[in-house]
Amino acid sequence: MKTKLNKRDAQTLKRLKELADEVVAAADRRRDPYVDVPTRSLSNVKYNKSKRFIEMGRNTNRRQLFNLSQARSYMQTMLVASGATQLIEQGKTTSIRGLYYLLKHTIEDAKEETFEDQSECDPVIEDVEVLLNSLREELHLYAQKRGDMVGELLLEDSGDEIDCARMGSGGYGIPSIVEPEVIQFKKCSAKFVLHVEKDTVWQRFNEDKFWRKHHCILTHGMGQPPRGVRRMLHRLHHELNLPVYCLLDNDPWGYYIYSVIKQGSINLAFESQRMAIPDAKFLGLRSKDFKECGLSDSVKINLNDTDRKRARQIANYPWFLHKKPWQKEIHQLLENGFKLEVEALVSKDLSYVTEHYTPQRLKAKDWLD
Amino acid sequence: MKTKLNKRDAQTLKRLKELADEVVAAADRRRDPYVDVPTRSLSNVKYNKSKRFIEMGRNTNRRQLFNLSQARSYMQTMLVASGATQLIEQGKTTSIRGLYYLLKHTIEDAKEETFEDQSECDPVIEDVEVLLNSLREELHLYAQKRGDMVGELLLEDSGDEIDCARMGSGGYGIPSIVEPEVIQFKKCSAKFVLHVEKDTVWQRFNEDKFWRKHHCILTHGMGQPPRGVRRMLHRLHHELNLPVYCLLDNDPWGYYIYSVIKQGSINLAFESQRMAIPDAKFLGLRSKDFKECGLSDSVKINLNDTDRKRARQIANYPWFLHKKPWQKEIHQLLENGFKLEVEALVSKDLSYVTEHYTPQRLKAKDWLD
Repeated sequence: MKTKLNKRDAQTLKRLKELADEVVAAADRRRDPYVDVPTRSLSNVKYNKSKRFIEMGRNTNRRQLFNLSQARSYMQTMLVASGATQLIEQGKTTSIRGLYYLLKHTIEDAKEETFEDQSECDPVIEDVEVLLNSLREELHLYAQKRGDMVGELLLEDSGDEIDCARMGSGGYGIPSIVEPEVIQFKKCSAKFVLHVEKDTVWQRFNEDKFWRKHHCILTHGMGQPPRGVRRMLHRLHHELNLPVYCLLDNDPWGYYIYSVIKQGSINLAFESQRMAIPDAKFLGLRSKDFKECGLSDSVKINLNDTDRKRARQIANYPWFLHKKPWQKEIHQLLENGFKLEVEALVSKDLSYVTEHYTPQRLKAKDWLD
Repeated sequence: MKTKLNKRDAQTLKRLKELADEVVAAADRRRDPYVDVPTRSLSNVKYNKSKRFIEMGRNTNRRQLFNLSQARSYMQTMLVASGATQLIEQGKTTSIRGLYYLLKHTIEDAKEETFEDQSECDPVIEDVEVLLNSLREELHLYAQKRGDMVGELLLEDSGDEIDCARMGSGGYGIPSIVEPEVIQFKKCSAKFVLHVEKDTVWQRFNEDKFWRKHHCILTHGMGQPPRGVRRMLHRLHHELNLPVYCLLDNDPWGYYIYSVIKQGSINLAFESQRMAIPDAKFLGLRSKDFKECGLSDSVKINLNDTDRKRARQIANYPWFLHKKPWQKEIHQLLENGFKLEVEALVSKDLSYVTEHYTPQRLKAKDWLD
């Protein structure tokens, strides 16, 4: 066991021990051990208007050891909790795949496996997260790592000083776990964060040294940003008071990425508190841009049925439903009948997006909220 | 136009101009302009036993302007060449998606588009690469960016000094274009490169500071490594004389990743010369590891029909066909009837792979070649 735990680890470990103590206490009192796991379903998710993000309701599901239909998931819950305990005590982290392998074994005197496959383990990890009110990262579990960062920020990562303004063309690879125990912000002269959807667009902005000229931090998440990137944006926004502007494609997928950054994801509503950025702005691309930027028909990509269906769903999200500009935006997308990628701006000029589009929109404060 | 071109750009530009000059010359002589594009098909690809990588044969396809069935692809070839010229002259790079948008337009006096979609543009880019004997990166085009690097290497990227030994938990994001004009190696005390398949495994090795203890460079490519990572490995191997060891899953996909790193890809055989690393070693996982590491049945993943088919195909690759250890390896995989992921070693211990498996195999020189 690691000799000294940091404060956060000590706290998480305390919660894990309390969970274990409850089992022992129940056994001592000859009661049926159980856990009440907050319900992770759409019915138990609501949009909190004052906090402006998605959060979980108060419903819970009881999971009892001595109940034939619940015993397996009770066992799995305890197993994941014991795995997290082991990780924290050893001062190590692992992927959800790693945890699965760590915990998977044939149960003694039975031919049953603790987990059949990864898909049986993942929801239990989420159960333990909500049960302990701990982010996955606090349980020492990491998600896939992708996305890079450059810009006017000096940070410390595991004792190494990293100057994001001197990261060349490659950039600093955003880690999966960016909690304050790992990453500390040291100095920041950036005025905002520009988050772009794709690595290819990020490269254009980095090559044009947009972040230097406009004093910002530049991130991407290779599509839907992974947890590490979302948490990094959250910290940059809340701790350094940096506005976050999102440059995404003009399609339902772009809207959805924005929605997750802003309000949190429906599946993982319990993490919104430390992930969601209600003040994040949608800088573009917008449905009006085809006309406004004078683009040619060649760059249009026709909407398909899935696009149309998704667009209508997103228009009905409670945080978009009562916002006229968003209704107009999505309505116009459907009326246009086509979508636009950020890369389409290349048809104007290679650096149109960095030299004209983005600076103009920022200056005019022309974004969706 | 950029005032001063670097040597490589000047060379590529010269080739592009020669191509254009040929068109003009043909027109002046009232001849039919054409290009002879080296054939990029399996029939024109062969394994060069002395160079030990896949290379293209001498077959070419003629593409004529005044031939109804070839005029379109002739036009597209010239268009891509002109796009690359524009990029080099402006000193800018773009993604293949960006180039597509740059070149896509409705042909004057016709309703035809220069390219219907990306899939019509991509093969033409490859045509121009082989036609000019220039890597895509030399045409200022970049592929997707993914993969990270840490280790005992100091490099310069676009004027920024990057110490890969001080990159925290995030690492240096390997750029798409790592040509010597962008990246220069400054100082290296690493003795070898360990390339792992997945970001999650990379994180384990980085967290355990394996590269510091064993004096190496640690890379991953998030599955099949993108061109930037392959080219980086190639340069580390050939310029710094570092052996490259690959730690991949024990399945046909792992074999295939190794095969591409080692011999090049069949689709893009012309780039092998500057991408392939014939001396790269396959460190594991191996089919013998289930027994040798004493793994439990729980970590087995059954082979499916596709796996079996792919395994047999790979066993017949000319560079594996006459190697007994490889035949034995693949035969045993099929006999086992299951595959193994690197993460399966977690079932032994979280750091089994970094503290036991990899050091032991390196020490014993127990790898496949």
